[in-house]
Amino acid sequence: MPLITTSSKGVFVIAVTPFTDDGAIDTASIDSVTDFYLESGADGLTILGMMGEAPKLTQSEALAVTAQTLARASDTPVVVGVSGPGLAALGELTRAVMDMGAAGVMVAPPTGLRTNEQIIAYYAQVVQTIGSDVPVVLQDFPLVTNVPISIDTLGQIIEAHPSIVMLKHEDWPGLAKISQLRQAEAKGRRRISILCGNGGIFLPEEMARGADGAMTGFGYPEMMVQVCQLAAAGNQDRAQDIFDAYLPLVRYEQQPGVGLGVRKYVLAKRGVIASAAQRLPGAPLPPAGVAEVERLLARQSRRLHELN
Amino acid sequence: MPLITTSSKGVFVIAVTPFTDDGAIDTASIDSVTDFYLESGADGLTILGMMGEAPKLTQSEALAVTAQTLARASDTPVVVGVSGPGLAALGELTRAVMDMGAAGVMVAPPTGLRTNEQIIAYYAQVVQTIGSDVPVVLQDFPLVTNVPISIDTLGQIIEAHPSIVMLKHEDWPGLAKISQLRQAEAKGRRRISILCGNGGIFLPEEMARGADGAMTGFGYPEMMVQVCQLAAAGNQDRAQDIFDAYLPLVRYEQQPGVGLGVRKYVLAKRGVIASAAQRLPGAPLPPAGVAEVERLLARQSRRLHELN
Amino acid sequence: MPLITTSSKGVFVIAVTPFTDDGAIDTASIDSVTDFYLESGADGLTILGMMGEAPKLTQSEALAVTAQTLARASDTPVVVGVSGPGLAALGELTRAVMDMGAAGVMVAPPTGLRTNEQIIAYYAQVVQTIGSDVPVVLQDFPLVTNVPISIDTLGQIIEAHPSIVMLKHEDWPGLAKISQLRQAEAKGRRRISILCGNGGIFLPEEMARGADGAMTGFGYPEMMVQVCQLAAAGNQDRAQDIFDAYLPLVRYEQQPGVGLGVRKYVLAKRGVIASAAQRLPGAPLPPAGVAEVERLLARQSRRLHELN
Amino acid sequence: MPLITTSSKGVFVIAVTPFTDDGAIDTASIDSVTDFYLESGADGLTILGMMGEAPKLTQSEALAVTAQTLARASDTPVVVGVSGPGLAALGELTRAVMDMGAAGVMVAPPTGLRTNEQIIAYYAQVVQTIGSDVPVVLQDFPLVTNVPISIDTLGQIIEAHPSIVMLKHEDWPGLAKISQLRQAEAKGRRRISILCGNGGIFLPEEMARGADGAMTGFGYPEMMVQVCQLAAAGNQDRAQDIFDAYLPLVRYEQQPGVGLGVRKYVLAKRGVIASAAQRLPGAPLPPAGVAEVERLLARQSRRLHELN
Repeated sequence: MPLITTSSKGVFVIAVTPFTDDGAIDTASIDSVTDFYLESGADGLTILGMMGEAPKLTQSEALAVTAQTLARASDTPVVVGVSGPGLAALGELTRAVMDMGAAGVMVAPPTGLRTNEQIIAYYAQVVQTIGSDVPVVLQDFPLVTNVPISIDTLGQIIEAHPSIVMLKHEDWPGLAKISQLRQAEAKGRRRISILCGNGGIFLPEEMARGADGAMTGFGYPEMMVQVCQLAAAGNQDRAQDIFDAYLPLVRYEQQPGVGLGVRKYVLAKRGVIASAAQRLPGAPLPPAGVAEVERLLARQSRRLHELN
Repeated sequence: MPLITTSSKGVFVIAVTPFTDDGAIDTASIDSVTDFYLESGADGLTILGMMGEAPKLTQSEALAVTAQTLARASDTPVVVGVSGPGLAALGELTRAVMDMGAAGVMVAPPTGLRTNEQIIAYYAQVVQTIGSDVPVVLQDFPLVTNVPISIDTLGQIIEAHPSIVMLKHEDWPGLAKISQLRQAEAKGRRRISILCGNGGIFLPEEMARGADGAMTGFGYPEMMVQVCQLAAAGNQDRAQDIFDAYLPLVRYEQQPGVGLGVRKYVLAKRGVIASAAQRLPGAPLPPAGVAEVERLLARQSRRLHELN
Repeated sequence: MPLITTSSKGVFVIAVTPFTDDGAIDTASIDSVTDFYLESGADGLTILGMMGEAPKLTQSEALAVTAQTLARASDTPVVVGVSGPGLAALGELTRAVMDMGAAGVMVAPPTGLRTNEQIIAYYAQVVQTIGSDVPVVLQDFPLVTNVPISIDTLGQIIEAHPSIVMLKHEDWPGLAKISQLRQAEAKGRRRISILCGNGGIFLPEEMARGADGAMTGFGYPEMMVQVCQLAAAGNQDRAQDIFDAYLPLVRYEQQPGVGLGVRKYVLAKRGVIASAAQRLPGAPLPPAGVAEVERLLARQSRRLHELN
Repeated sequence: MPLITTSSKGVFVIAVTPFTDDGAIDTASIDSVTDFYLESGADGLTILGMMGEAPKLTQSEALAVTAQTLARASDTPVVVGVSGPGLAALGELTRAVMDMGAAGVMVAPPTGLRTNEQIIAYYAQVVQTIGSDVPVVLQDFPLVTNVPISIDTLGQIIEAHPSIVMLKHEDWPGLAKISQLRQAEAKGRRRISILCGNGGIFLPEEMARGADGAMTGFGYPEMMVQVCQLAAAGNQDRAQDIFDAYLPLVRYEQQPGVGLGVRKYVLAKRGVIASAAQRLPGAPLPPAGVAEVERLLARQSRRLHELN
């Protein structure tokens, strides 16, 4: 199975975990949503992320979802989120998913780390625990983790651990961070892959600043694929035209606590998953939200038609 | 001078405070930016807000900016932000600006309040300190204050204090909050004015949910005026067309810590203020940001041309 | 096996999880530390708490520790901490430990809950998930969870869920909370058991305010047993004499991030566990700390001798 | 008037601001409490700190309190807290109090700084704003500011700005920080004065680790004076005997949000200030708290009698 490397690029879609209306894992939809992501042009998948409702799964469910997704994704690399409060469980989960064929693991700093020294020490302990042969994605998402990682701290971690091959960049604001990372590389630091998150809401600018792609979710992953491909090909204006057509929905999906309901609503409407249900405490999109999304979808469809 | 009431509506622009390149207050630009906001169709102004760099002013500067703005704005209502850690200073500033002719004062909860009881007690102390005859805007902005105000808590505060006539709504996500407030009013609670913030990034949906307008800033305040007027007139689609044309820039200006640099860059470019300078620790828009903004402005101009 | 009830009282010791120097679970020490707690006069035990390094255990380790402790504790009630980010895992763990014979489960609110409504909804979902026949300890520890629970919110939760039989009280400051809970009960609300935490640093005052005992850890659990028994017998002054003799060490053990190292050092020195080792990222007490603790222990021993 | 230096040591008492029962500043009590602190053996005073209710004063009140205290303290150095959200106001206040004869100013990082780079930049801006000739106390109090300052960050700030002559140390836990600072100095970094806070609850250990004294408040400042003098003279055991006698009250006064009520109650009972009143939102010690404090005071008196 393929491993992620510092050269990985393109779109790694953060996959949703489909549930039935009564809260069970919907295994049929795992296959269909995996197929959908690959058919949309995804270069990879990331499962068991925060937006994949990973913390709501039991350990055996998490392993089952991983096994099924890996089987279905076949040769496409699948990154598995293993973040958690304890290193022993993180190590156990990492070994399990790497044995199954995962392309790497993603690790966010646990809430509660407070200083640069603590953050640096944490990633050293992670690498020591899982071994330096497992490719790691460092997830930098302070809005949720409440752990801001300064550019200097990030640099020290990258320099210390060659097995950290990729940054899931979702600091906010974060455009300057991409530029500063690339400038440090221009001066000699080893290059890492940077895939961006935050639902893609700054994707055109992020690509122009030197990102290698996106690692995030959206009801229309084909938007991210097109924008990344057009940007990589130097066609910035066309990339932004596509992006702008989807932007009203991207923006709407970015609402914390509401976004996953929007995303699953769209995916269910598109027939990709059987139900938009989330496990508790997630709530379905309320009727007023449904009306707002439907209105945005109708406008989006017209706008895309004008573009073609 | 006019006072704000529970019937106030439209766009109250959060005014920037103009500085010269060496950090002094630029009094000539205070007049020109005030004129610009009024000519753009603003129904009111709000000064000494967080995005007005109020905490960076000395007390005497704050009073001077208020006096000059009030004189220039003439009959247009001007709300003054008086939030601060202490009630004595808040009371002193409130008395001073109301004597000068302010239309009301805006008060956010101080960082550090933790429970509903504490938030409720705080607003009781505020009203007791400034008197129940001063119209108050309650600023609900948990992303910055770190004080989430639940819908039930908000309701108790509104019921207890008739002098709180307006909500500056910038909870995020916050669409459901608008709907719930209006539902409670439909069942008998007194109606208050709701003006929305967050740079207007959900303005079309907010208006449809029952907001009375916007109280926020943006380099193109005429967008907010048009969207609010079209929405109030029931022309939702045209409102959204206008909104969508500006959305790429709205989104870009929403970056925390970067947004004010964008806004001042645009206002300076439009000739409304002489310099985009911010006081420390604010930083000017860096060259890469300038290039991104210029690109967005060129696209925005083309898009608006297509719409007309 | 006994279940906890609203009448439970006395000292439930928060048990440490013993590890060997190389980080494996030290099963021999689990037996010896369990025996030690019971011989010290504990009325119950609480395992898999934050100070029991629960988040550092894998799921199978957590279950093994639980099974062994339950077997060794025999008829003494053992509460098991099941807090975690997801309800499915919480439910699975609860079922497993209740089947093994646990006396109840302890649940802290997950970091990220922000309003009274969210906290209330969370405990409703917990009770719905685990069933209303499982006795629950609500852990109120905002210093760590970052979720302050107001007295009114706490009251609503208690009224809604009879299966929440006990409060692990470690709000800080929290003396008024105990008084207010007891006052509400005097006016008719059902009584719950209140056991106090925070390393016992306010134990004499907490007992006088109406607490039923302590649920916390300390290198000398016999102090908590004596203080609770003396206080319950009305001998406040003798209780405080005992407390004061241990207070310099209680205070020293209260240092966040350092306390567990102190506690394990003392327990290892007393021969109760074989090693003071913690799993990463926990660090052993450094030499300067060892010297400080030894000095406090020598003084404590002299002071206790004077008291007898 | 004397300035603080890197050699300053002993006890700088954090002074309370006395109010009358109706919330006015009690100028007579300012003189009497100043006299009391000096007669208790204080080596300096610190006014307008967080526990001095500084944020509750208007600007003119803050200046009046400063002028009166400086006049009364005569040759004793008085540090003035100038922390605030904006640099312009901080600079203005600093100039005013230094002109009046203050010994230096104390600056805590504003809530909202998130990374080491931001903290380092902030202190550079502070020194640039107030001038490098004004002695600065860096207040490191993350429990309140929510800005943890790592040991490495602290070192960079100290090395960059010789005018930062003193650390008000109240990180928690913080014993290791004192040791690490002194170790860095032993290797060549310039020495700074370290005075410790946190109500003195770790004062014996802090002195043994290399602190130069205390900068904090307590109802019995003579305890801090004795402990610091005995510790400086190498009489650790006697220092700890004195400390232990006061420890039950020190502990009680450490309760956040309650502590100032305790301290003012004790000072009023001792006749040092006329009223224990705090300005809103501060609340007086409730009757149950008064009873607890009286009980502790009676025991403390007996214990001190035994010691002499």
